[in-house]
Amino acid sequence: MLLRMSTLFLRTLRDDPADAEVPSHRLLVRGGYIRRAAPGGFTWLPLGWRVYRNVERVVREEMDAMGAQEVHFPALLPREPYEATGRWTEYGDNLFRLQDRKGADFLLGPTHEEMFTLLVKDLYGSYKDLPLSIYQIQTKYRDEARPRAGLFRGREFVMKDSYSFDVDDAGQDASYAAHREAYTRIFDRLGLEYVIVSATSGAMGGSRSEEFLHPTAVGEDTFVRSPGGYAANVEAVTTVAPAEIPVDGLPAAHVEDTPDTPTIETLVAVATELFPDAGYTAASTLKNVVVQLRHPDGTAEPLVIGIPGDREVDTKRLEAQVSPAEVEPFTDFAAHPALVKGYIGPQVLGADSDSGIRYLVDPRVVIGSRWITGANEAGKHVFDLVAGRDFTWDGTVEAAEVRAGDPAPDGSGPLELARGVEMGHVFALGRKYADALDLKVLDENGKLVTVTMGSYGIGVSRAVAAIAESTHDELGLVWPREVAPADVHLVATGKDAAVFTAAEALAGELVAAGLTVLYDDRPKVSPGVKFKDAELLGMPTIVTVGRGLAEGVLELRDRATGDRQDIPVDGAAAAVLAAVRG
Amino acid sequence: MLLRMSTLFLRTLRDDPADAEVPSHRLLVRGGYIRRAAPGGFTWLPLGWRVYRNVERVVREEMDAMGAQEVHFPALLPREPYEATGRWTEYGDNLFRLQDRKGADFLLGPTHEEMFTLLVKDLYGSYKDLPLSIYQIQTKYRDEARPRAGLFRGREFVMKDSYSFDVDDAGQDASYAAHREAYTRIFDRLGLEYVIVSATSGAMGGSRSEEFLHPTAVGEDTFVRSPGGYAANVEAVTTVAPAEIPVDGLPAAHVEDTPDTPTIETLVAVATELFPDAGYTAASTLKNVVVQLRHPDGTAEPLVIGIPGDREVDTKRLEAQVSPAEVEPFTDFAAHPALVKGYIGPQVLGADSDSGIRYLVDPRVVIGSRWITGANEAGKHVFDLVAGRDFTWDGTVEAAEVRAGDPAPDGSGPLELARGVEMGHVFALGRKYADALDLKVLDENGKLVTVTMGSYGIGVSRAVAAIAESTHDELGLVWPREVAPADVHLVATGKDAAVFTAAEALAGELVAAGLTVLYDDRPKVSPGVKFKDAELLGMPTIVTVGRGLAEGVLELRDRATGDRQDIPVDGAAAAVLAAVRG
Repeated sequence: MLLRMSTLFLRTLRDDPADAEVPSHRLLVRGGYIRRAAPGGFTWLPLGWRVYRNVERVVREEMDAMGAQEVHFPALLPREPYEATGRWTEYGDNLFRLQDRKGADFLLGPTHEEMFTLLVKDLYGSYKDLPLSIYQIQTKYRDEARPRAGLFRGREFVMKDSYSFDVDDAGQDASYAAHREAYTRIFDRLGLEYVIVSATSGAMGGSRSEEFLHPTAVGEDTFVRSPGGYAANVEAVTTVAPAEIPVDGLPAAHVEDTPDTPTIETLVAVATELFPDAGYTAASTLKNVVVQLRHPDGTAEPLVIGIPGDREVDTKRLEAQVSPAEVEPFTDFAAHPALVKGYIGPQVLGADSDSGIRYLVDPRVVIGSRWITGANEAGKHVFDLVAGRDFTWDGTVEAAEVRAGDPAPDGSGPLELARGVEMGHVFALGRKYADALDLKVLDENGKLVTVTMGSYGIGVSRAVAAIAESTHDELGLVWPREVAPADVHLVATGKDAAVFTAAEALAGELVAAGLTVLYDDRPKVSPGVKFKDAELLGMPTIVTVGRGLAEGVLELRDRATGDRQDIPVDGAAAAVLAAVRG
Repeated sequence: MLLRMSTLFLRTLRDDPADAEVPSHRLLVRGGYIRRAAPGGFTWLPLGWRVYRNVERVVREEMDAMGAQEVHFPALLPREPYEATGRWTEYGDNLFRLQDRKGADFLLGPTHEEMFTLLVKDLYGSYKDLPLSIYQIQTKYRDEARPRAGLFRGREFVMKDSYSFDVDDAGQDASYAAHREAYTRIFDRLGLEYVIVSATSGAMGGSRSEEFLHPTAVGEDTFVRSPGGYAANVEAVTTVAPAEIPVDGLPAAHVEDTPDTPTIETLVAVATELFPDAGYTAASTLKNVVVQLRHPDGTAEPLVIGIPGDREVDTKRLEAQVSPAEVEPFTDFAAHPALVKGYIGPQVLGADSDSGIRYLVDPRVVIGSRWITGANEAGKHVFDLVAGRDFTWDGTVEAAEVRAGDPAPDGSGPLELARGVEMGHVFALGRKYADALDLKVLDENGKLVTVTMGSYGIGVSRAVAAIAESTHDELGLVWPREVAPADVHLVATGKDAAVFTAAEALAGELVAAGLTVLYDDRPKVSPGVKFKDAELLGMPTIVTVGRGLAEGVLELRDRATGDRQDIPVDGAAAAVLAAVRG
């Protein structure tokens, strides 16, 4: 295919767009790949659409190769199935909802678990029909509060979403593994570095879940990794709990006056004044943080989280733990006299206590651990309060912030924190959706069994941004061959008709050989502008026909490495083909 | 590619779905090509999606070949551009509207004139940038009052929409002609018969417009054609007006008592009683029909249409004429005393009359024509009321029904009526959108000129239904090769292992040669069921490996013609390839 710059619908821009926060967004707009059309909505221009379609092709080929079958659902979906699973409500403001002319409720699909489940229920009924993996590559909608970073987080975007259906857990494991393996092949082909991290499944429910994160400084997700290869989404990091301590012989708890201790820091100072030899630090204190949970049915509940005083509650971690409930600030102390603001202690907490307020603790709060904490009385704290002896709790919660240097749960050393963007997600959903929508099949014994499912997503449009982000340099975009909108950028410079004749002939030969050539045939544009455009647009191979033609040579340049070489004009097509095909 | 029936996500149905009105809908559901997912929304199953993608490929190839460039817009669009052109309102209930979490108004794009216009305005500014044709193949939304006939009229569907931009009318003519030509190639390749009819442009505005109608009994559109090749949408048919008649010497008008004449028929009877020799017929009477126009701004206006008494007003024709106003029943006679129900006459009508009520007449009402019509007094009609002498009008209107046998406007004979479905539409929009959105470029003289545009659509998902509708037979679907989901349906029958071994080997050879093979490898399904499925699914070539294998032969069958032949198992792949490749 031949793309002529003289007629291509393209306008490269010298200046960065005002609203672009990250390099990929800036360069994709400047290079005429995408253009903003709405808040969080982008138009693909011809070159961008070619990159998008290349990414889509890679995803489709690998999904087909693993035996998944392609289908395609509407994006405009009825409310009822999402009502049945609770997601109509759980999605909150993130869901685009609308009504048709008759007032019936619809939504724009953010993901399609319900619809796939119903389709399989509709057509299949026997274990013999399974396993089944079906997928679509489809436009999705989420009413993001803050669309950002161009294609990274839009309100309309393309996802490949697949769903597996198995009759038993072993089958589900195999389907999960097959998707995971296909995803590694996809990201390898796209040239996208990735880390597979353990993830919480959040609002999706289910039991096992991993994310394919592309490490990048502009990523929104923080993840951890250890020297031994452990990697997890921050939400999924599990805390290494210390060993329990026998409570026998531990000193008795004692209440002390601790006036003017509004912060952990001042509390530690006062405690040290009282007991100079105890070696108290912030980690010696137990901070009890009250939040309000808002449940999907609208009811609210106070919840107290006990964590060591040297850590803060990480709201995203907490939210992942309590989902689908949402976390809100707690203010209604008046209604809960057991909660003495600033001096809350665990002695009065717990679902079985008089207050009835649920109390969850950090995993570091183990039986036998001793704490300085609130005495449930203004101006007083209690010391040597022993977990399991002096107070109990309703469960543990992974809500404390994760820090670089924390021990990895696999014991392989200290954790490192890094940023990344989620490119793919594999979920073992289990039977949540099949239960909610009653998807059962007859097993070998003629008994109805509930199907177990998996759900697997790849951000297709997002991958375009991630590739641009990870490969660009200071001059512009640098596309990997697999996704480049053209194989070769052919630049004809100067005003000499012979140059254009030679370039045109070379373009013809390359196209005949099956390459896509972006040919800069613009007659009145200076060589400087053409070269700048070639760097900005980022085709992997740049061929220049210009002054050297008089000496019988063209220049062949590798955009990624910057390597240049002169090649004879005779046989140039073969040399270019060799460079392109490696 | 090899598709195995044993694992293909497919369930063929013996019974017709209850809600299917037309054969293509019935067969596409029964054959497991599509499945209803929402009112007016369908899911493509694997075989259906393959057909869809084949159609899409043909459309894309031909659009690319004509030099149009592919882009892709969001479907979720902001209100403002549609507000600027008035279409936010004009679309009425057909538009899906919604709000985001901040309460900003959005719509689901029914067509993208505004967005393309703004994009070109955003990037281009000179006559040198034009001509430009850009297109997308994209999901569209319309809140149809009555989704029907499966893929023929859904609320979510895929359209190829393109837009041309030219600096002058000659350029626009060339762009229009190029699209028209590309459309003929597309429908030819898809094997879809079409008639190109003149069309009104309706709510789209603009000057010239033609539809590509596929003639089919299940079509919603009525069109006309003449022996001489004239063809038009019923809305666009122009009436052949009789010659004007000199008014000198015509008898004076006279009012007569005409009691008990509630219908044209009774009026003609009474008139004939009064004047037995006059030869009155229904065509001698002028019927004045009152309707109420509802303008986009919400205001209402009475409008009287004068048509010969032997014709009815065709609401669709009238609507096309008065668009974007909508036509509603008129009931408020009390507010307009000039309108004497049942006895309305033109003497009191017209924008300049005392009543101020607009009066439009059928083109058959020419100067000098004589009519029996209402006397604006109960129980009385006026006779020999002469047009142009005794009454005037504000304009003519093409609102009367068109009948088979009416003269064609090109003089080539009587019109024939036929039904069809709109597959494509080409519009010369002119400067309506460019004016509304201020799209101007500098011309050769450095002067700003408004760009002239065209808009061109093809129903891509609808084409799948049209092909199914036009090619099916009583046994099932019959796909043309260009769009068939597989080239060959290979059926292995019986329980003999040798049959499956031979079939498997043949499938391998055909796939290696580049064919897509749908291989019925189901071990426990009877030959009868397999043959029925093969007929229903409709691959163009059916190969059966079965009992004949013992004699060294397979059966090769052409689904469309029903021709069967035995071919030797040795060299069978070559024989099948020859049949497939014609």
